[in-house]
Amino acid sequence: MIPISRATSKTLTPSSVNSGDDTAPPKMPVLKEKRNTYRTFLNDLPERVTIVEVGGRDGLQNEPKMVSNDVKIELINRFTQAGFEKIEVGAFVSPDWVPQMAGSAEVLAGITRKEGVEYSVLVPNMKGFKGATSGEYLPEKIVIFGSASEIFSKKNINCSKAESMERFSEVARKTKENGMQLRGTVSCAFGFYGDTVTLEDVTDVVANFRELDCDEINIADTIGVATPNRVYTLLEHLKHEVPVDQMSMHFHDTYGQGIGNICASLQAGITTFDTSVAGLGGCPYAKGATGNVATEDVLYLLHELGVETGVDLNAVADAGRFILDQLGRKSGSRAGDAIIAKREQTTKPGPAKL
Amino acid sequence: MIPISRATSKTLTPSSVNSGDDTAPPKMPVLKEKRNTYRTFLNDLPERVTIVEVGGRDGLQNEPKMVSNDVKIELINRFTQAGFEKIEVGAFVSPDWVPQMAGSAEVLAGITRKEGVEYSVLVPNMKGFKGATSGEYLPEKIVIFGSASEIFSKKNINCSKAESMERFSEVARKTKENGMQLRGTVSCAFGFYGDTVTLEDVTDVVANFRELDCDEINIADTIGVATPNRVYTLLEHLKHEVPVDQMSMHFHDTYGQGIGNICASLQAGITTFDTSVAGLGGCPYAKGATGNVATEDVLYLLHELGVETGVDLNAVADAGRFILDQLGRKSGSRAGDAIIAKREQTTKPGPAKL
Repeated sequence: MIPISRATSKTLTPSSVNSGDDTAPPKMPVLKEKRNTYRTFLNDLPERVTIVEVGGRDGLQNEPKMVSNDVKIELINRFTQAGFEKIEVGAFVSPDWVPQMAGSAEVLAGITRKEGVEYSVLVPNMKGFKGATSGEYLPEKIVIFGSASEIFSKKNINCSKAESMERFSEVARKTKENGMQLRGTVSCAFGFYGDTVTLEDVTDVVANFRELDCDEINIADTIGVATPNRVYTLLEHLKHEVPVDQMSMHFHDTYGQGIGNICASLQAGITTFDTSVAGLGGCPYAKGATGNVATEDVLYLLHELGVETGVDLNAVADAGRFILDQLGRKSGSRAGDAIIAKREQTTKPGPAKL
Repeated sequence: MIPISRATSKTLTPSSVNSGDDTAPPKMPVLKEKRNTYRTFLNDLPERVTIVEVGGRDGLQNEPKMVSNDVKIELINRFTQAGFEKIEVGAFVSPDWVPQMAGSAEVLAGITRKEGVEYSVLVPNMKGFKGATSGEYLPEKIVIFGSASEIFSKKNINCSKAESMERFSEVARKTKENGMQLRGTVSCAFGFYGDTVTLEDVTDVVANFRELDCDEINIADTIGVATPNRVYTLLEHLKHEVPVDQMSMHFHDTYGQGIGNICASLQAGITTFDTSVAGLGGCPYAKGATGNVATEDVLYLLHELGVETGVDLNAVADAGRFILDQLGRKSGSRAGDAIIAKREQTTKPGPAKL
């Protein structure tokens, strides 16, 4: 028996947690009260983090099976009810190229909006912008994108990085004229297959977005190759260019690094993250690979760290189950699977498992 | 265009990486040369980390489908060939309780051993110990286990924590007499459903294992509920009880936190981790949930951080594909899926994906 000071013990596991409920996971003693004074792994965590739920756009866009507009609307409404304050609703891109996003106008018009929630759509050009803004309701935010990789830019939108920025100048101007917010996403910020992406490549795109008066700079690891130290190092540099509260991170879980990368981003001061319910989506350049980092896994992390999101994790797990049933696929969220599994099971004595 | 100093740019992305190969992921500029001097997220990383591949034991033990001894032997041999220096081979437990581990004696006898590799087996009692040591070859290490949770101990091995330690005293003594190494695994070190686990609970089990002269203390998050700050805090305390190089961590990815928890452990100085190829296994108390943190995902993390493991990630992905085919299940490793997917695909121009 090794003596442990009572104070230390109480700090690690306050007596108010971990008792009684045999179906819920044990509550984590997260040192919540001492969050900003107790030296631990992730320090100076924010009180609150904003999750941008992108499953209805980046998720569904990369699913081989398509769902109806009614299903999309139901999904977005579930996100609103779950408490998300930022939701990506769709993309106004060519239905010949991205049939999954056909009907984004109907979805934007059909959802039940909630005061204070930011509904955003992605547009690649003025044609998309007109589609996005021709309905009764304007989206709160327009998302434009530019690649840090020249090769990806050519593959993705069939034009050079410089040309893609020219395309967006009118979109940006009109967005502002119409009183909407503007988000610029830097895709492939951590590389693309066969291409070199340098720090200058990223900062060039960021500078272009700043010239376009973007309200938010979104740094995307489009093919999911980043690891935590690269994320932190890039952000430490970018913080000299953009106020950290105007940056957000978009991670794919292609190599399973999403949660680690979010930890690194939190430590760098980032407070806004894109995530996708049930890890919907995939990587168009590695078919069969995982999609966006799963909302449920990220919410589990944040809530256990004592960081508020305003989002109901159980409601998100339910939304995940809803859309997975529609898509006929398995979940890409480990926490989502665990939450559903725990609900459907009572604990029983079993054999030696370790 | 924002001026960036050349030194900074070269540090982040040396020109020697990221060029040419269109099938491989871009190489990560991991600041390898400057690893211990450049302030980043994870600092003072070790040169080398040891992975204990547990897919053949903790993985297969929790799979509903059983495989033949020949398949198990092939799997362990693939692990040896892939470069693992520590491999868990089986468990000498009651086949009535854990039919998946029946035949562990045949597996232990049938594998092709490599000089310098540590093959270990789990034993719950003297009967198991006799089974593990009655063959021609002794395992290099015996694994015993004790729960930090009283409720889990009763559920898992049908005896109290104190009783379980008594059971192991003779096993421990005989292990040492036979010149084998001894590992003590603290299960449920981060809680169990419906139970409170305190710091004292963990340190009590650790102290018992130290009294039994364990060479290695293995801290296991059996149901996968830990998050990074809890991991770091627990380890900062345990480091006062056990030299950090005698500790290893065993994470389950039930809530998707495995990679984050490994980052926290690395920062706390841990250099040995249990992982399971293709994320084999599951959680016996949440059926349908994810298993051990996947070897491929952890190797991807470590190698991109510039930490050596001596293990060939591609060979592990192949071993994963081999055993997944035998089990008829999908991979639980995101990196494994991505590596296989990339091999089977060439990049093609496609529609706007972000």
